Order: sequence, then structure tokens, then C-alpha cells
Amino acid sequence: MSTQTEPANLMEAVVSLAKRRGFVFPSSEIYGGLNGFFDYGPLGVELKKNIRDCWWNDMVRRRDDIVGIETSIIMHPKVWEASGHVAGFSDPLVDCKVSKQRYRADQLFFAPVNVGAKLIETTGETKTTTSSGINISSFEDKTLDVEIIGYVSALESERTREELQEKAEQLKRKKAIRGQILPLVIKDMTEARPEEITQIPSPATGNPDLTPPRAFNMMFQTNVGAMTDASSVAYLRPETAQGMFVDFKNVVDTGRVKLPFGIAQTGKSFRNEITPRNFIFRSREFEQMEMEFFIHEDDDWARWHRYWINWCKDWLLSIGLPASHISEYDHLREKLAFYSKGTTDIMFRFPFGVQELWGIAARGNYDLTQHANASGKPQEIFDEATKKKFVPHVIEPAVGLDRIFLAVLASGYAEEQVTDEKGNTETRTVLRLSPRIAPVKVAVLPLLKNKEALVARAQKLYQKLKRKYPCFYDEAGAVGRRYRRQDEIGTPWCVTIDFDTIEKEGDTFTLRERDSMAQKRITEAELFALLEEQVY
Amino acid sequence: MSTQTEPANLMEAVVSLAKRRGFVFPSSEIYGGLNGFFDYGPLGVELKKNIRDCWWNDMVRRRDDIVGIETSIIMHPKVWEASGHVAGFSDPLVDCKVSKQRYRADQLFFAPVNVGAKLIETTGETKTTTSSGINISSFEDKTLDVEIIGYVSALESERTREELQEKAEQLKRKKAIRGQILPLVIKDMTEARPEEITQIPSPATGNPDLTPPRAFNMMFQTNVGAMTDASSVAYLRPETAQGMFVDFKNVVDTGRVKLPFGIAQTGKSFRNEITPRNFIFRSREFEQMEMEFFIHEDDDWARWHRYWINWCKDWLLSIGLPASHISEYDHLREKLAFYSKGTTDIMFRFPFGVQELWGIAARGNYDLTQHANASGKPQEIFDEATKKKFVPHVIEPAVGLDRIFLAVLASGYAEEQVTDEKGNTETRTVLRLSPRIAPVKVAVLPLLKNKEALVARAQKLYQKLKRKYPCFYDEAGAVGRRYRRQDEIGTPWCVTIDFDTIEKEGDTFTLRERDSMAQKRITEAELFALLEEQVY
Repeated sequence: MSTQTEPANLMEAVVSLAKRRGFVFPSSEIYGGLNGFFDYGPLGVELKKNIRDCWWNDMVRRRDDIVGIETSIIMHPKVWEASGHVAGFSDPLVDCKVSKQRYRADQLFFAPVNVGAKLIETTGETKTTTSSGINISSFEDKTLDVEIIGYVSALESERTREELQEKAEQLKRKKAIRGQILPLVIKDMTEARPEEITQIPSPATGNPDLTPPRAFNMMFQTNVGAMTDASSVAYLRPETAQGMFVDFKNVVDTGRVKLPFGIAQTGKSFRNEITPRNFIFRSREFEQMEMEFFIHEDDDWARWHRYWINWCKDWLLSIGLPASHISEYDHLREKLAFYSKGTTDIMFRFPFGVQELWGIAARGNYDLTQHANASGKPQEIFDEATKKKFVPHVIEPAVGLDRIFLAVLASGYAEEQVTDEKGNTETRTVLRLSPRIAPVKVAVLPLLKNKEALVARAQKLYQKLKRKYPCFYDEAGAVGRRYRRQDEIGTPWCVTIDFDTIEKEGDTFTLRERDSMAQKRITEAELFALLEEQVY
Repeated sequence: MSTQTEPANLMEAVVSLAKRRGFVFPSSEIYGGLNGFFDYGPLGVELKKNIRDCWWNDMVRRRDDIVGIETSIIMHPKVWEASGHVAGFSDPLVDCKVSKQRYRADQLFFAPVNVGAKLIETTGETKTTTSSGINISSFEDKTLDVEIIGYVSALESERTREELQEKAEQLKRKKAIRGQILPLVIKDMTEARPEEITQIPSPATGNPDLTPPRAFNMMFQTNVGAMTDASSVAYLRPETAQGMFVDFKNVVDTGRVKLPFGIAQTGKSFRNEITPRNFIFRSREFEQMEMEFFIHEDDDWARWHRYWINWCKDWLLSIGLPASHISEYDHLREKLAFYSKGTTDIMFRFPFGVQELWGIAARGNYDLTQHANASGKPQEIFDEATKKKFVPHVIEPAVGLDRIFLAVLASGYAEEQVTDEKGNTETRTVLRLSPRIAPVKVAVLPLLKNKEALVARAQKLYQKLKRKYPCFYDEAGAVGRRYRRQDEIGTPWCVTIDFDTIEKEGDTFTLRERDSMAQKRITEAELFALLEEQVY
């Protein structure tokens, strides 16, 4: 019997489990870590590999219309000029001229502090609303003297508003100004007017030392070859997608593909985020799984767009993410790039809010056309029907592997109150991972480690299972404790070799299921059939 | 019947096949490529993934004493200070001050040109040998007037010696000097004396414009965060191994490991080679598969060293590399680093010579000690027996995935003269890949594409196979041609659905084996059993 409770701070619990059980470590931790970089530990690397392999099998190997590739992380710099990343892949950045701190302009907030300085008692009062949506009171026949006494600023956090309010109060006290602070109108630094920038205090110094926002390119830059000058500049790719476009003709010429068809790839990408955050959700080095699905220019892009949105949602369910956490968000037409026909994000309810998980973009023929123009090499396909050449259009489902990993951990994590047969209540931590992606598929447990026959039978089963499935052999401690250890790392099944196995007919084991904690007898053949069906 | 012939230029044939059938493309080819970077095409990515997965399964999942991890490519820069890479991971480099060309000093050769200017006929002659091993003739009672008339230089190639000789002749003609050029004593630029460097011509200008050799660090450098200054410098890892050392304590604390045990990882590494060469053998971006096997400080390192050399050789055989191409090379004791106990390379006969494939190094406790000192965090294990703490020693088998890929292609490639039943002879190209790593495990071929029953049975088999195995359905053209297409990409088996399948009892197919071209009847159950046994 169990009762499930949501832990008070789910994100903290997940990060703690990830560290404690070897899923995720901060990178270079013995040197104090490196902000925005993470390592995957013994269990994490298996979980990550399983998610990646499931995607690869379903997206590439089991389909006739999609092929895989693996392109280099460092590509020719002209790739990123043609794609628009050199010119436009940037975040707005604000410098503090004194402290040399840098801030993302859209994460640094400010407000002018207005004080109603001379409140005069009156009989008549009228409410009006300013263009900023703030209600102020004006007084009949009297002038309300509203005075701006300065600016306050604060970095984005869960209590930005409160922090700004406190700073406004401080400012008023410091300046010894009487009266009432009007409700703050908060903006971020991308909205600051030039005359405001010279007055907004830097969060580092408290003085107005900030520069106007400038574009900061997020591509990591390096130099290739013996020279270190402009001629040798190269970039770490900020996305894997361009590899598919740049290799498009090579794939068409060698791959026996026919429209519609896709090219897929998984691999590392790098973005020099100013403020990486939310654990592995937004890091500087991450792994993508992207696919470019090429269609005829006359084909119905909206139908394919919808096809791939549905495919992606179904796939997320197939690896065990709960439908209750998944939603869709259509980007507003007026906010799309000129070439874009539509973008829909599959959103996921993370502990820190509903965030983008998988973007499905209809990009027209923009990318191939850009590369055709920049390289001088046509990126066309010959249409047998119309005898015309054309540049195919593309639908792009792009997802971050680390984000799926986090979604899986966060939505699979639970703490349950369990009552055992003796009536004792304890808390069990359970990671409800799908058998498709669980790092360990089955744990093999001899009931007692000092009974040779039990251990021998358990080892025989373990060795046989291990050739095909990642599994774990554990003989240390009480069986109940061993179950708990497996629950916490998401092992779907435990198999116990007990006295019934060796003494009764049928050579059966106790199969214990993680989520229901139900137990039943099972033969070796039935166990393999179960795994064959559930692990694919 | 077949006769096998070694193609005239095996390397050229392999590179051509790799491009033609979509195994390997030059990176960013539409932009003229980027020297030292490669992309893997639809078949290449599958072959590469299969090699990687075989290694992972055998090295990690099927063993109880090894766990996997995946560390970030960009690590804290102090990692590379502690490891010695910042100070010492370099190649000697020579600059041409005029052309700005740069050369690896050990690949730029030179020779002084000595001319016996006044040869005087004589009766007596004595042969002597100089310390450089060159025979010169001295003449009794006469002085041989040997004059140095200048220096010549040439880059490393297959005909460096001939090129230098030609340049020496040119020099003599240009200077209008009579007499005979003495045999050239050739050295590389790392051996040039200061007074020689001012006389050796640059290959680019022909004038003595070269600088003395200097150390060029091969790590790619970048900057992390919003600052671009010394404080933000970071490197792309030049090896994956340091990840295992830096995460050692995290793994020990979370992984339930006991000595001896190993930590393994596969992943991209980067080296800014001045002269990448031999296709994917020495590239700037490559993938490593490394494992650090930690042993007790009192354990017999030589026994473990031998254990891992043998394991690696056996593994290479298990993925189909021929024993005839594999040898061992023990590094000379006097050339080892001070901490090294011994390094043995598994060598492979590539088309361009016998080269290092897999290095197995006994590194003592050097790496963990370096990181303990640099980080201030002890990297010790507690010994229950002696109740003492100590730093474990390590054996490191390190191999490049791209090199194995190339070894597999080059040794698997063959052109055979085949005589068919009509007595016609033709050449078939066959890639003898092990079923473990072949990109396509089995091709399903209906004998005729316009016979519905054949196609239906073939599709049914294909769909069933595809859930578990990468396979290929092909109905285009004569069966013989379809076999050839599969031979060329290394598909071990073709299954033909013919009239016997649908008309006779037993539902059997024709199984055609790639190497022997033998054919036999097989049932679906037998086919799955064959795959289950051979593909693991």
C-alpha cells in the first residue's frame, strides 16, 4: 500500500538524486565546477544512451524514409555566415563599466521610482489609469505633484518585483523624501531609453555604470590551424541542423533517397549562454537530436508539420513521459522569421514551469537556398513528374537530449509513503522510468548470499541476461532494501531467486514490479519474453 | 568462383568507396572542405555507431567491474594545467617570416649541399664513412676540396629524398659550380643548428626566411562566458581520459565500485594538428574510446597490462579485423615518461604502413596524484585490509574510433574476379564486415517486384526484422545486381523471397552469404536464430 506525495521542492530532490546515485555531476567539480557544463555518471550515461538509441531506432533505423548522418562539430566558418548565425545568433548584453560584470539585457530589470511628494487632503478624488496600466489618483481642484526620484534595478529571480520594491523604499529613505511610492512600472534593459540608461544603477556598483545593450554572439569561437588570426577563425556549432543542409547533396547523390525523406543526426552543440540555468535544462554544452524532413515544394507543408508534431508527442509518450505534462504552443505568426511558415513547440511541465521541449518548425526552403547562394552549388532536386528542378522545403523537429533526460527524471520522481506487512510506514523514493530507457532493466537478487544453490542459480540467470540487457546483480542486505535501491534508480523489475526456485518444480522466480510493487512467479522464458516485448 | 586481387591503390579505392556509398564525406564540402574534419554519411554513421556500441557493450555493460561516464568536452582549464597539457601538449613548429606559412619542424627536411669542387685525378683512393653514415672518398696525397654551396629543403612526402636531390642539382647549376654533389645528409628542422637555420631556404619563398622551431600547443582554445580575456580561456579536450580522473571520486562515492575497477567513456576529442593526414587516420576532430582501469598500488601492474593488451586484441578480432594485420610494439623504456611503467601499442597494417591503433599504457598513479595536488582534493581509496589510504594505479587502453573505422574499411575491402554460371567474368567489390558491425545486417529481396505474393511475403519479413535489426528492402533490378550493391556496403546476408517460398511447403527463403556467395534455404525462425547468434 502506498500514498504518493509530491516532494516540497521537486527540483532540489531531483538534482540531489542525480548527484547521489551517479546520474549527473557538475563538470570539473574538484576544481570548483564550470558554470553551464555537466558530466553524466555511470547511471546517467546509460539513461542518456537509451534515450538517444530509442530516438535513433524509431527515427532512423525503423523507418524507410529517414537516413542518419554525423557531421563534425567544427565546420567551415562560411556555413555559419550563410545560416545567419554569425550575424544574428546573439543575446543582448549590458556591461557594467566599473565592475566589468556582464548581464543579459532581458534578464536585468529596472523601474523608475515615482513618488507622490505632496499629498494634499481633499474632498474629491478620481481614479485614472496610465498607459502603463497603473492606477493613480488625481485630486479635484488640486495638483498631485509626482516626482521621479531615481531608478532601481535587479536581476531576474523569483522575487524580482519584491527586490525592486525594497530598493525603491531604500532610495526614498536615503533621499529623505516624503510621500508615497507609486506602483513600479518594471521593464527589462532591452526596453530602456538612452536617457534612462544613464540613470539606471548597475546591480554590481549601485551607480549608473551600465552600457546600452549590444548583441553578444553566442557561438564559441576558436582557431583552426597554425595561424591565430581572422583567417583561421572557426566556431563550435550552435546546432546540429546545418550539418544536414550542408551535406544535403552528398546524401541525395549517395543515399538512394526520394522525396519526402529526412536526414537525422544526434550530437553535441555549444552555446555560450550568459546565464546558464535550471540544471541541465539550459547549459553551454548540450546534445541535440534533430531531423530535417524534406518535402516537395508543392507538397502540403501544414499536413507534414502536423504529422511531425504528433509523431514527436507519441514518441515522448513511448518513452514514458506523462501526457498530463505535455502541451503545444504555436508561435505567433507576427513573431516568426520571414521565411518561416509556422513553428509549434511541444511544451513540458518542468518543476520550474512549463518550458519548450521540442520545436517543430516549417522552414520553407530558406536554409538550402542560403547555402546554394553562399556556396554557388545548387541545392536542387529534379522532379521526374514536372521535369523541373526545385529546392525542397523542410520540416524540422529539433529536441535537446539533456532536456528530455531532465523531463524523464523530474516527472518520474516520486516519494511514496509505503506501509509494509508489519504495519510500519516508510518513505520510498521511486523513479518511474519506462523499461525502454531505464539504465538497469532488471536486477537479479538471490534471496540469501550464503546459500550456494541460490547464488548459483542467480548467477546463471544474470550471465544469460547480461549478454542482451543491462542488468544488475545484488546480493547485499535484506531483499526489501535491495528493492528500494533499485526503485530509486528506476529499475522496472527485480527477480528474486528464492527457495521455491530451487526446491519446487518449474524453476520459477519472484518477479517484483517497481511501480505497483506487485509480485508474481515467472519462468526464465517468460522473463525473456517480457523483456523482448517491453525493451525495444 | 572468385579470385581476389589487391587493388593497385587500396587507400584510393577505400576513400572512393567511402565517398561513393555514403560512408565518409569531407566536412563542409560545398564550401571547399575544412582540412582535418570529416562527416559520416548514412552508412558511415551506422558502421561507426555499431563499432562504438560493440565496444560499449563488451567494455561496460557486459562486465561487472567497469562503469561508463560521459564528461563534457569543455572542462575547467585547471584540468589541463594539472594534466600537463597546457605546458607540454605541443608540436615543434617553424614559421616562414615572409610567406607566414607554418610547418611542423619534424616534417620539414633539409640538407647542406656539398660539392667536391676540384676533383684531381689520382692513383690512390680510400673509402671512409662519416658519422652521418655517408661514404666519401678521400684521395691519397691529394686534397679533396669539398665546398658547401648552400642548403636545400623539402616537406615530408614519399619523394622527399628525390626532391632534395633535384633541388641540390638546381642549386649547383644556378651557382655555376663544377664538380660532383656529395651524397646528401638529410635532417629535419628539429635537428638544425642555429647557424644552419639562417641558411636553410623556406619551401615557400626559396630564401632563408625560417624561424627556429618553437612549441605549438595543439589544444583548441576558446573563451567561456561573456568576457574574452585570460580569465575565460578554456580548451576543447584533446583526450577523453582526463574526464575519468577528474570524476574519479564522484564515481567511487556513488557507483558501488571496488578495486580493481574501470571507468570508460567514448566521445569527441580535438587536436589542432598542423598537418592532418591519411584520411580519417589523423584528423583534428575525432572520437576516442578510452578506459581507465584502477588497481591497488600493490597489485601486479604487468599482469593487468598484459590482460588488457590481450583483451584489446581479442576484441579487434571479434569485430572482424584480421589477425594477420595486427602486431604489438613496446615503447622503449628510455623514451617513456618518468611516471610510466610501460606502454604497448597494438599496431595495424594500414594501406599507408603499420601504424598505432590502440595504446595500452601503465601510468602508475601519476594522473590522480597530479589532480590531487592541483585541486587540493585527495584522490585516495581506503584499503580495508591494511587500513591505509592510497592512490590507485591505472592501466589505460585508449583507441580512436575513426582509426578502427578505417582499419575495418581498409582490411575488409576487396575486389574479386567472379565467374558466373554463364562463364562471364566480372569484378565484384566486397566489403567483408563482421555481422557485429555491418551497417545493414540483412537485405530482403523479392525475386520480382511485379509479383504481389513475393512482395507481400518480403515486406512481411522486412517489417518483422526491422524492429530488431538494421536491414534493407530492395526490389529494383536483377537479383545479381542487388547482391552486388549489398556486397559493396558489407551486408553479410541477403534473403531472397522466390517462388519456392510461396509455392512450396515450409515458407523458406534463399539465404545468400556475402563472402562465399553460397546459397541455402532457410526458414524465418532459422534466420532470426542466425542473427541472434551473430549480431551481438
